[in-house]
Amino acid sequence: MSEAGFGAPTRRQLLTAVGKIGGTAALYQLMTTMGHAAETQFSGPPNLSGARKGASVIVLGAGLAGMLAAYELTKAGYKVQILEYQQRAGGRNWSLYGGDTYTDLSGATQHVKFAPGNYLNPGPWRIPHHHRTLLHYCKAFGVKLEPFIQYNHNSFVHHEKAFGGTPQRFKALAADFEGNVAELLAKSIDQKALDQALTKEDREKLLEALREWGMLDADMKYAKNLKSSSHRGYDRPPGGGVPGAPTPSDPFAFGEVLDSHIFTNMAFFMNDEMQTTMFQPVGGMGMIGKGFQKQVGQMITHGAKVSKVMQDASGVTVTYTDMPANMVRTAKADYCVCTIPLGILNQIDINVKPAKKAAIGAVPYSGQVKIGLEMKRRFWEEDEAIYGGHSFTSQDIALVSYPNYNYFQDGPAVLLGSFANGIGAYKLAGMTPEQRIEAALAQGSVFHPESYRKEFLSGASVAWHRNPWTLGCCARWTEEMRAAHYQTLVEVDDRIVLAGEHASYIGCWMEGALLSSLDAITRLHKRALEA
Amino acid sequence: MSEAGFGAPTRRQLLTAVGKIGGTAALYQLMTTMGHAAETQFSGPPNLSGARKGASVIVLGAGLAGMLAAYELTKAGYKVQILEYQQRAGGRNWSLYGGDTYTDLSGATQHVKFAPGNYLNPGPWRIPHHHRTLLHYCKAFGVKLEPFIQYNHNSFVHHEKAFGGTPQRFKALAADFEGNVAELLAKSIDQKALDQALTKEDREKLLEALREWGMLDADMKYAKNLKSSSHRGYDRPPGGGVPGAPTPSDPFAFGEVLDSHIFTNMAFFMNDEMQTTMFQPVGGMGMIGKGFQKQVGQMITHGAKVSKVMQDASGVTVTYTDMPANMVRTAKADYCVCTIPLGILNQIDINVKPAKKAAIGAVPYSGQVKIGLEMKRRFWEEDEAIYGGHSFTSQDIALVSYPNYNYFQDGPAVLLGSFANGIGAYKLAGMTPEQRIEAALAQGSVFHPESYRKEFLSGASVAWHRNPWTLGCCARWTEEMRAAHYQTLVEVDDRIVLAGEHASYIGCWMEGALLSSLDAITRLHKRALEA
Repeated sequence: MSEAGFGAPTRRQLLTAVGKIGGTAALYQLMTTMGHAAETQFSGPPNLSGARKGASVIVLGAGLAGMLAAYELTKAGYKVQILEYQQRAGGRNWSLYGGDTYTDLSGATQHVKFAPGNYLNPGPWRIPHHHRTLLHYCKAFGVKLEPFIQYNHNSFVHHEKAFGGTPQRFKALAADFEGNVAELLAKSIDQKALDQALTKEDREKLLEALREWGMLDADMKYAKNLKSSSHRGYDRPPGGGVPGAPTPSDPFAFGEVLDSHIFTNMAFFMNDEMQTTMFQPVGGMGMIGKGFQKQVGQMITHGAKVSKVMQDASGVTVTYTDMPANMVRTAKADYCVCTIPLGILNQIDINVKPAKKAAIGAVPYSGQVKIGLEMKRRFWEEDEAIYGGHSFTSQDIALVSYPNYNYFQDGPAVLLGSFANGIGAYKLAGMTPEQRIEAALAQGSVFHPESYRKEFLSGASVAWHRNPWTLGCCARWTEEMRAAHYQTLVEVDDRIVLAGEHASYIGCWMEGALLSSLDAITRLHKRALEA
Repeated sequence: MSEAGFGAPTRRQLLTAVGKIGGTAALYQLMTTMGHAAETQFSGPPNLSGARKGASVIVLGAGLAGMLAAYELTKAGYKVQILEYQQRAGGRNWSLYGGDTYTDLSGATQHVKFAPGNYLNPGPWRIPHHHRTLLHYCKAFGVKLEPFIQYNHNSFVHHEKAFGGTPQRFKALAADFEGNVAELLAKSIDQKALDQALTKEDREKLLEALREWGMLDADMKYAKNLKSSSHRGYDRPPGGGVPGAPTPSDPFAFGEVLDSHIFTNMAFFMNDEMQTTMFQPVGGMGMIGKGFQKQVGQMITHGAKVSKVMQDASGVTVTYTDMPANMVRTAKADYCVCTIPLGILNQIDINVKPAKKAAIGAVPYSGQVKIGLEMKRRFWEEDEAIYGGHSFTSQDIALVSYPNYNYFQDGPAVLLGSFANGIGAYKLAGMTPEQRIEAALAQGSVFHPESYRKEFLSGASVAWHRNPWTLGCCARWTEEMRAAHYQTLVEVDDRIVLAGEHASYIGCWMEGALLSSLDAITRLHKRALEA
């Protein structure tokens, strides 16, 4: 390829050529070297050409995986029917608004009282920039997105064992962690502890880096001065006119900084699923489910409680209770895409291979608890200059997250008073809705002691282990389970294929559900062509 | 204060009490201890009660400082007139839209050709969450704000001396920097180099922190595995169905990571003026100037070129050329708030103390260069999953910044092709507008080699050193200059007081201009009451 005459190849031409010659692995290798590694397995809508005329598919579940399967299979020429337990499409993609009610397995019914426009997203609530499948279909289906503020230097971090239980600003703790790490590493270099690990040249470069990154002074110390304060915050901030000069703040004792576990939060923000930029739909996460529903709504039979899925040489027969009519009915098709969460599916009579049944029964589900609290005013913005993002705590509620819409507005706003996981979630799930709100107010008050109870209006909560249509939030695979069951779970079993976040490596994310769905229907289509 | 009976004091009650007893210093100290340090010198609109009926003020300059002074002085009862050189209010708060023209000191006129809704902000472009004065008046004046995406893990970092000049993703470089720093510090602890600096307990806590923060493996190494890849990016990202499993990526050589100067970018994001959350006005930064103008527009005489500011016992007389009429006129008032940038003011005949004249002449102005490039489509979003934020480079343009509005939309979009400073800015300022665009295209192509030139439509640039009404972008004080001149510059000189970002410790930011203005008029009002 000559540089003269016809010009150098474009990067895309080069990548295409390498992909053709060396395959995917070589392509990824080259893209990484060029700083453009792929960030997604999404490569556009599936190519399902050649479907046999009249071939039919039953999709079980009108969540995102099921609706995407129905949408793409219909486009390809299949006749599709969706059976859905709920009266609503979207599945875990869902927002609770004022006027909504929610009844969980405990029998407790909550009447949501939020002001118009305010909402709680009980399930998914944020979209990473690299979840290209979801972003693609949001655009295709007209779902408007707005930024989700993930990283907020000014929010709080609270740990019961640090600072006598007083929360501190993320920025102050992070700056002190970095400053101390930089100072200690510089000291080690000074003491020649790393002479074998690093060349002299790299040691010098590293010292320069540590001084700049860690805000060290001329003596390579992280000290109280305006330099460190420009990261951690000032005692008196800079201003204008006569009193304009700032004064520095005291760094915290490093032991306390370590006790705050700030490094956990710092690492959290570097996690690929948590990295910025993130998005949310305008009007609540449930707008995505509604966007998908607009495409396939006419295929959905709501109120259908599936009890049996049988396949034989002639097709798949699904037995379900038509709950509104209280009638048992059957539906038949050539193939079935089953997106029912595993905890529910495990209770349904389905004739797939024993190994797949074992896989269905093997994967535990997490039980996150989300609590929405409507407050009279945005005291976190007005009093604390916190706009979106999260304040983290070692308490059961795990965090308080601030709304990413209607900033600066007067009137009520809903914050997320808990996104609990693990033990904390079990404890909150065991409570009544009223007790959960009381716990959220008691624990969240640590961040906003003056306002939290005073400004509280009403709340709503969803404990996913008590959710009737999922029995949990999402699949939590371990490495051992993956090795034993994953490929069995996802493989096409004659006429049936499973799809959903549980059939992906992006568990608990909508992107996993969608990529799983695209892969499942691509393989099912291939199976259908071979029939 | 009893805990029984009448309850504990609220935090605000406690703070108020401490403030009354111990003064501001004690209050700041306590607030810091409580994790709630003040982040601003703004404490609400000024209290200017008791103004003498009929007292008058001339404000020079209809930028934000001048318009805020006029607004608050008028509210207090003063009779206010504003003289402004330009036909537009807002000063450096300014957006260039399609249809606008701009002529600089070189005589070159640019005709901006951007599509409707697209813009370049030549001056300020982002608002920190702790710039409370600006946020207060934006709300008061109905200026709608939206998030400005500052921190983007997925944007690029380019350094000419690293990776053979290939840009890499911020996340990969930052992850590798942190991972290597963590591994080296853990090694130092292992080699007992820090036994004197840290207690045994803190060493153990620190090792735990380093493992978690730096994504170290069980051997405390930063290595190629899925753990490090979850921060730096995968070779093959996780997906759904059969091919769902991810594969890890290779960390970069640490020497190259250091050569990329990623630590500079990491420190940048921790700078208090750069910390998230940030905002921008919907529709361009110039909407703020327009919002202020709505309040005081009727007081502004446009096209007024001030040549002389004289004060005596009877008042202040300002001589100016009414440029549209080509007439020399005078305006008189009791007092004067002068917000004219120092490089211009230094050329105006003004009878203030010699020390203040020296101060006016002492402060150099920076000469940033901004270049807007309109592209046919959002290839940075569509091809690279970059939504807002900045790609940094060691080249003259310094960065490419991506628009924070109309994400996902089809059609043309304007990105910031340069925000040059220092030497780079001098070089770009010396070029014609056409040459600047060529330089921006040539240098910015490093990030988007396939698309940058191909998708380019039109551009516009502002080199602040060539700007006729400021002769520079903003004041750049050194510590020595502050010591010699700052208090002299800001003090009331009989009937005249200066205001603007140059009269603040938040130089180059709108907040500095506003805080300076509030402080200046508060002191001028006090002076007027004493008269």
